[in-house]
Amino acid sequence: IRKNVAPRLCYYARQCQGGPAVKESEWVNKKLKKEVPKVVDSFDIEDVGDKKVFCRCWKSKKFPYCDGSHTGHNTDTGDNVGPLIIKKKDN
Amino acid sequence: IRKNVAPRLCYYARQCQGGPAVKESEWVNKKLKKEVPKVVDSFDIEDVGDKKVFCRCWKSKKFPYCDGSHTGHNTDTGDNVGPLIIKKKDN
Ligand code: FES
Ligand code: FES
Repeated sequence: IRKNVAPRLCYYARQCQGGPAVKESEWVNKKLKKEVPKVVDSFDIEDVGDKKVFCRCWKSKKFPYCDGSHTGHNTDTGDNVGPLIIKKKDN
Repeated sequence: IRKNVAPRLCYYARQCQGGPAVKESEWVNKKLKKEVPKVVDSFDIEDVGDKKVFCRCWKSKKFPYCDGSHTGHNTDTGDNVGPLIIKKKDN
């Protein structure tokens, strides 16, 4: 399904200029920070502490951290996504 | 769009037993490790080294690491996903 977005739905300039069509059904991220071209998050190892759990389902209310929302998403859709865990050994 | 999968497309038992319907258009992960119920990856901080870039688009051929495939995915679909970076300070 390819479609052009209406002007009010233009998230990035290229979508409003006859650029690449938008295939929302293929989107991994349906709603977080859609105003930025690319959502990248960077953390210093020194700030990770004993353990951090990072969201990869793009549904978390605490993004970029996981808040467990992947469980509801998986149940609702039959998907099988889960977080990335970074932790000190033996945590 | 809710649909039941054909038996040959049963990834998990519950999809073959009249369980929750499958909405593939809502899937974040379209094809990686669909045979497991939930894809979780865990790393020890001690093994991260100077820098690791982790995939959150579920398109990487080096998953759970990012191989840059998010760029093509974003261009093709109008999505705006990118990786999680874990690095030593000043890297
Ligand atoms: S809330 Fe997104 S992976 Fe857990
Ligand atoms: S390849 Fe998936 S985020 Fe880069």
